[in-house]
Amino acid sequence: MAFTYPQKVLFKYCDPAGIVFFPRYFELINDCIETFFGEAIGVPFEELMKVGGVPTVEITATFKAPSRHGDRLLLSLSCRRIGRTSATLDIDAHCSEELRFRATSTIVHVDRSGRPEVWPARIKDKLQSHLNR
Amino acid sequence: MAFTYPQKVLFKYCDPAGIVFFPRYFELINDCIETFFGEAIGVPFEELMKVGGVPTVEITATFKAPSRHGDRLLLSLSCRRIGRTSATLDIDAHCSEELRFRATSTIVHVDRSGRPEVWPARIKDKLQSHLNR
Amino acid sequence: MAFTYPQKVLFKYCDPAGIVFFPRYFELINDCIETFFGEAIGVPFEELMKVGGVPTVEITATFKAPSRHGDRLLLSLSCRRIGRTSATLDIDAHCSEELRFRATSTIVHVDRSGRPEVWPARIKDKLQSHLNR
Amino acid sequence: MAFTYPQKVLFKYCDPAGIVFFPRYFELINDCIETFFGEAIGVPFEELMKVGGVPTVEITATFKAPSRHGDRLLLSLSCRRIGRTSATLDIDAHCSEELRFRATSTIVHVDRSGRPEVWPARIKDKLQSHLNR
Repeated sequence: MAFTYPQKVLFKYCDPAGIVFFPRYFELINDCIETFFGEAIGVPFEELMKVGGVPTVEITATFKAPSRHGDRLLLSLSCRRIGRTSATLDIDAHCSEELRFRATSTIVHVDRSGRPEVWPARIKDKLQSHLNR
Repeated sequence: MAFTYPQKVLFKYCDPAGIVFFPRYFELINDCIETFFGEAIGVPFEELMKVGGVPTVEITATFKAPSRHGDRLLLSLSCRRIGRTSATLDIDAHCSEELRFRATSTIVHVDRSGRPEVWPARIKDKLQSHLNR
Repeated sequence: MAFTYPQKVLFKYCDPAGIVFFPRYFELINDCIETFFGEAIGVPFEELMKVGGVPTVEITATFKAPSRHGDRLLLSLSCRRIGRTSATLDIDAHCSEELRFRATSTIVHVDRSGRPEVWPARIKDKLQSHLNR
Repeated sequence: MAFTYPQKVLFKYCDPAGIVFFPRYFELINDCIETFFGEAIGVPFEELMKVGGVPTVEITATFKAPSRHGDRLLLSLSCRRIGRTSATLDIDAHCSEELRFRATSTIVHVDRSGRPEVWPARIKDKLQSHLNR
């Protein structure tokens, strides 16, 4: 079951070529993961940050077609793999039927000092309900 | 021969955990590629953009260790592969001896309408002088 | 009649002090004006940009209290003054009852070449219905 | 005596109209103040942040002419007023002889808990040597 996150392409995301500046896509991806944790996992980032966090340790993205100002994107997030302290997430974005980008991000659950920490059961269960395979 | 690009980690790049927010790393990577084109290739982005551009079509990054406000990073860019219309660039960043991130980016040379276009010889020659293998 | 724009303070907006980095507030202000044009004026920025735009020529902001990650802000926009080719907008943001910032922005309606252009009647009428005095 | 800070307008600062997106100017202003503290005052932001900071409480900016990708700006910072715990800074930016923007920012020296704190003498002295009137 994928978590979906609709976002309109705002002016601030676009570059002089009139398309989304790719580092801004990574902001959108981070927003999507943040909203997934708040709404689907039930652990808002602002609470998670008080006791640690889920920094990104690896990310790869393929930009299939440009997105323009005003485009309505639908980001879709699901879990590819859930480890003891990490998780690999697949995020893609479509505009209508067209795939715009596809990204895979690995995040690690860490404590306040940045050391990897086993996922709490309540988070792991929710992640598992979003496995995509 | 690698192109090097020193950058101090400014306040604006850092998140509430006190480390570089990863989408900001992609801004730095873009700045590095832009400066490489201006200084090493001799074709400033602002001129390239008038007749097309070099959009990123794929990028992957591994964040090995966090960077903190005030850290002095040395980004290093070299070419892994030069195609007919594209190029794959390796960019890594160190702080002193410590590797902070390693990224690989594929850019495509396009015309004003976004169609892939063969690299001009003067650009291709310069890219070749930065091949890393 | 004010136009309201609720926004949660996302991780990306916050700095190492854990509060909103003030340049990010200006992004939120721009998003608010963009959404006001799309939803209240009925002229989406992405259409307005095809024939000109509404660049900001002056802006002043007072930050009364810091906003933290997770805070739910309510931005409120109204018109202070409507000129022949320009408009002055008041935007403030509250979290519950607390005022966080107050800004005043002057935008100018321009054509494609950047020259000031008289407001079209349909835009001026809608702006007038959001006058705050 | 003004502190000067040269900056080339990078691709990332520009919007679909091909000019600097105004919230990005505030990033540049923050970078300028940060560099002023590190180089002219001798107190790098990354050290100041460990014991407090200098948050912006008010800022006003007038954008006189647009800046384009590749423009070489010269930002110039001087002190308009130095208070017990605050300072008002004037920052303007020129490209060759043309004024692009003029901003006035009030910052407050705070301790770790965000309470205003009297300027240390070594900072106040340096600020005074940059008074513009």
